Amino acid sequence: MSVADPGGHVQLLRVQNFAVSQDGFGAGRGQSFERPFGHADPQTMLSWAGATASWPNRTDPGGSRGIDDYFTRDYARNIGAEIMGRNKFSPHRGPWENHDWQGWWGDEPPFHTPVFVLTHHERPSFSLSDTTFHFLNADPQTALERAKQAARGQDVRLGGGAHTIREFLDADLIDTLHVAVAPVELGAGSRLWESPDELLDRYHRDVVPSPTGVTHHLFWRR
Amino acid sequence: MSVADPGGHVQLLRVQNFAVSQDGFGAGRGQSFERPFGHADPQTMLSWAGATASWPNRTDPGGSRGIDDYFTRDYARNIGAEIMGRNKFSPHRGPWENHDWQGWWGDEPPFHTPVFVLTHHERPSFSLSDTTFHFLNADPQTALERAKQAARGQDVRLGGGAHTIREFLDADLIDTLHVAVAPVELGAGSRLWESPDELLDRYHRDVVPSPTGVTHHLFWRR
Repeated sequence: MSVADPGGHVQLLRVQNFAVSQDGFGAGRGQSFERPFGHADPQTMLSWAGATASWPNRTDPGGSRGIDDYFTRDYARNIGAEIMGRNKFSPHRGPWENHDWQGWWGDEPPFHTPVFVLTHHERPSFSLSDTTFHFLNADPQTALERAKQAARGQDVRLGGGAHTIREFLDADLIDTLHVAVAPVELGAGSRLWESPDELLDRYHRDVVPSPTGVTHHLFWRR
Repeated sequence: MSVADPGGHVQLLRVQNFAVSQDGFGAGRGQSFERPFGHADPQTMLSWAGATASWPNRTDPGGSRGIDDYFTRDYARNIGAEIMGRNKFSPHRGPWENHDWQGWWGDEPPFHTPVFVLTHHERPSFSLSDTTFHFLNADPQTALERAKQAARGQDVRLGGGAHTIREFLDADLIDTLHVAVAPVELGAGSRLWESPDELLDRYHRDVVPSPTGVTHHLFWRR
């Protein structure tokens, strides 16, 4: 499932820093502009990452350089493109009323690469700083081929949400996953898994508890 | 203790992947050409690293991508120079009889940056592939200034051995340390510490056990 670039390196599809609740939800019910994670509290899901020195959105100096920081600093390493689902890009559903919405991230999105947004409703590509958003109505395999081409030999990050990661898991296209299980139960929402053990037939796994309360699950192919 | 480059980034001095025994020794007694780690078995100290996908000396494909791999893949990230003690560079002691010895690493040393070897016996610089070795008779502070200059805004790695790391700890020059404690007792040799707790007055610490048997200690400044 891995493509070698002309230099002989392998291009991986990687899930990085994806946060889920103890009961397996990547976001809560009822995503909206005001609540991008639905009824889930983004602070509870992501405070472990925000506290690290390498958090991409960090504005003040400082931050921890312990185990959690290894994960945030790995977020951009050797990544040449991202694939995300439309629900990560936008709270809108159905056809675009207009093209005013340009994502949640302001003028400096934290991706710094081409980003491929999977949607049934395509629209023209646009750039914000060094991030370019493309809109693709494609199956996972086709989207991955496009993203690998755009990544020019580097890896591709699969950004989520949970539904999109499920589709790529079902198509057996993901090489490595880092999922941070947060110490909270959501009860409902967008589900990644019933249990992380579901993946053990196809993946090795290391489980790494952090002092901040999250438990990092690291999967790589058997 | 950190120098900001013109772009406002901070240059860190980092210890990476330094392996010690349970009782705190970085190498055994009696280093020689045949036994670079003295009576310590390098396999016991470093097999956790050699098993990872990102181990710099890996020749076959494959390897693990779990928690240990986060440490080997971080080895070169944003590193622009290394400082090492003479005993890491060579088994010789005293004045150089000649300059035939060019390190343990063959024609392709795994550093790919300038390397500053601390020694009372200077000799001319030389290059092997994209690594250049310089020989410096200098105190830690002066050596660090030279290395930071050579690193052009990137961080500096402190490569060891234990005696050299001790000198830089005593001079309070190290910003982060990653030390892998291997499941073995050596009884004697080159000592890094009596206990990792010695550093807790100056550093935060995360302790991360790996399924491979080593325990990673991650220190960053308070």
